[in-house]
Amino acid sequence: MKLFYMPNTCSMGIHLLLEEIGKPYEKEKIDFASQQQYSETYKALNPKSKVPALQVDNGQVLTEWPAIAFYLARSNPEAKLLPDDALAQARVMELVDYITATVHMQGFTRFARPGNFSPDESTHEAVKARGLELFGNGFKIIAPQLKQPYALGDFTIADAALFYVEHWAVRRAGLTLPDACQRHYNTMLERPAVKRMLEREAAA
Amino acid sequence: MKLFYMPNTCSMGIHLLLEEIGKPYEKEKIDFASQQQYSETYKALNPKSKVPALQVDNGQVLTEWPAIAFYLARSNPEAKLLPDDALAQARVMELVDYITATVHMQGFTRFARPGNFSPDESTHEAVKARGLELFGNGFKIIAPQLKQPYALGDFTIADAALFYVEHWAVRRAGLTLPDACQRHYNTMLERPAVKRMLEREAAA
Repeated sequence: MKLFYMPNTCSMGIHLLLEEIGKPYEKEKIDFASQQQYSETYKALNPKSKVPALQVDNGQVLTEWPAIAFYLARSNPEAKLLPDDALAQARVMELVDYITATVHMQGFTRFARPGNFSPDESTHEAVKARGLELFGNGFKIIAPQLKQPYALGDFTIADAALFYVEHWAVRRAGLTLPDACQRHYNTMLERPAVKRMLEREAAA
Repeated sequence: MKLFYMPNTCSMGIHLLLEEIGKPYEKEKIDFASQQQYSETYKALNPKSKVPALQVDNGQVLTEWPAIAFYLARSNPEAKLLPDDALAQARVMELVDYITATVHMQGFTRFARPGNFSPDESTHEAVKARGLELFGNGFKIIAPQLKQPYALGDFTIADAALFYVEHWAVRRAGLTLPDACQRHYNTMLERPAVKRMLEREAAA
């Protein structure tokens, strides 16, 4: 199993899940600074030019954050990253999908890469402001649903998704998180797998 | 079970899955023309102001296209909407997530609602053009992976996701689909559940 990742991007959530599972895995940094995601070598593995991507043991490459996380949970049941019940599993996927497709890709990405959203540079400050608003609204939608100690009670793959957007909110966007999200973020920072992931990404 | 939907939006994919399952269900149209998605009544059910939303039999409301589709598949195993194997399930979710989060929400939405992407009306034609480009690129990524007769061989929830974006491509964006996608779209149009869904949405 091999993770293709870039430190501090959303792949940190998958990196964290691999640390939670605790089995040996390889990882390869795809250097966005040198646009390595657009190299022919990487596009042959993942034509979407994105991270995370996970090469599984049969050599196939799996993409899309929710699908990779779901696969890791399903194929490592002893790690208990997903409940068994159909509705409870769907609640996990609901939170993962909202975080990845809306809070991250509609909210944070407007803030971090306004050029992806508007061709006119003079509008970029407005696009960034709208991004921060959507990003912040995401946490306002999520906060009232949060259980304790983790997002849905027990630890699941949804906590890894929520962690990476909370980390961006605090470290990159300067947002004040709603209390329930700040408490969740603090709880996550105490997990040994989270500490290992953050140390390894800082050194990568 | 009750589906909150608006004809011709992405909720058509969930409407189609309910027709495939064939059990009785209720549906309620949320009229976007009168901005009913922002009504206090609807926001109390779904604070995201989006469709689809599915009220399940215990009264809880589930949101997010991939999570609703996954729940319907998991809770109706006799409909065979999802394979059993972990990696095969993840491949279904990978296609569903790419279609909903990227092809639809990054591609088609730029084309259909450029104001969501740029505050400056003078840039809207450029935003729409970029939307069509991203929307078309999505089908170029998907087409080489498609199996037959359905996206992953047997019919799955991914076919319902692929159908709604193909339908928009043909009927709303005037795109020429890659051959493999056009063949998939034609195959889907022959399914009785698809015919019923389209007739009912046209009459709603």
